[in-house]
Amino acid sequence: MTDSVVVFSGGMDSTVLMADILGKGKNVQALSFDYGSRHNDRELLCAATFCQEHKIEHRIVKLPFINELFSSSLLKSGKDVPDGSYMEENMKSTVVPFRNGIMLSIAAGFAESIGAGEVLLASHSGDHFIYPDCRPEFNEAFSRAVFMGTGEQVSIRFPFANMDKRDIGDLGRELGIDFTTTWTCYKGGEIHCGTCGACDERKYALRYDEGFDPTNYAI
Amino acid sequence: MTDSVVVFSGGMDSTVLMADILGKGKNVQALSFDYGSRHNDRELLCAATFCQEHKIEHRIVKLPFINELFSSSLLKSGKDVPDGSYMEENMKSTVVPFRNGIMLSIAAGFAESIGAGEVLLASHSGDHFIYPDCRPEFNEAFSRAVFMGTGEQVSIRFPFANMDKRDIGDLGRELGIDFTTTWTCYKGGEIHCGTCGACDERKYALRYDEGFDPTNYAI
Repeated sequence: MTDSVVVFSGGMDSTVLMADILGKGKNVQALSFDYGSRHNDRELLCAATFCQEHKIEHRIVKLPFINELFSSSLLKSGKDVPDGSYMEENMKSTVVPFRNGIMLSIAAGFAESIGAGEVLLASHSGDHFIYPDCRPEFNEAFSRAVFMGTGEQVSIRFPFANMDKRDIGDLGRELGIDFTTTWTCYKGGEIHCGTCGACDERKYALRYDEGFDPTNYAI
Repeated sequence: MTDSVVVFSGGMDSTVLMADILGKGKNVQALSFDYGSRHNDRELLCAATFCQEHKIEHRIVKLPFINELFSSSLLKSGKDVPDGSYMEENMKSTVVPFRNGIMLSIAAGFAESIGAGEVLLASHSGDHFIYPDCRPEFNEAFSRAVFMGTGEQVSIRFPFANMDKRDIGDLGRELGIDFTTTWTCYKGGEIHCGTCGACDERKYALRYDEGFDPTNYAI
């Protein structure tokens, strides 16, 4: 019997979430999404490796229509990913319209199909400025819609909604996570670029300035 | 510039909706979903034909993961579709978990990508008993979640939410729709079976007993 379905990208946030709830003894299945972002291949390899090591059932759902029909610089079909701070206006070009809503809807239907009562997503308060589908008012309305739309069988939970990415990094270090096995960089190259908004935020989260960040950055 | 994205199955409800809003002069794009139901091929052919005839941009989004991962007698991977009244308990086996939520989420992201301000779905009051993701409380919460999650750019509307399928049939007749170009039967055979719950409801909607239903049923 599965307790929880986790939306698991292989990034640092959802990896910390996986480690956290596994530590609480829950039965978990992981669902990853390949939506055609530049960094999907890197992320998904991290997710698959984690699940193999922890013997977690893991499925990768392909959503090729997002890359074909949607506009975003995060996608292989989009313009270049901008450099700069995560909080800058130009980072809004990386929004994939309603991405979290799409992933959560699919995860909700899958959870109902296998009798799991909850879906977990590791979105956090640092995402609010850029991504509207990470904000509290979205989380609340969407959770209600899923609970109603599944005949009150599935709840959506956002355990990190009141934490920022550094809180998550700190929790991950407490849990003993090797962050070199997680992927963040939006550009999806051989190593983390160190200059895109996502790398900028990762450095903040993992306390790069204090020497705690084990990531190998290009810059 | 597109005003509205319509979730268009090729069934009678969404065909009436298409005709209704085209008559109101709106610029429309149609989005259909192939989620592996037994009757998808029949429905999608009807949808494509309608869009060709009316010169509507039409996209079919394939969701193969639903047939692979989800449980429902409506799916090719599921058990047989039951016969009987649409309102009977056994019709609940035809629920595809959170199907409307999944389709609406994708349509919302697509609408945001092309700058369309609304997504329309032809769910109606007759669906409430069987399908939780057709009920008013779902509609309300989901609309709110989409509006929030798209940065207040996309609204979801359910124009037939307060009508039943017969109201929709009557409206379609007023609009001059040839219902033989729409598909309803869940079994997806050569012609409508006439005995599954969906055919039962179609007969009610199109006033079969009064001689108005032009459908060729097997029984």
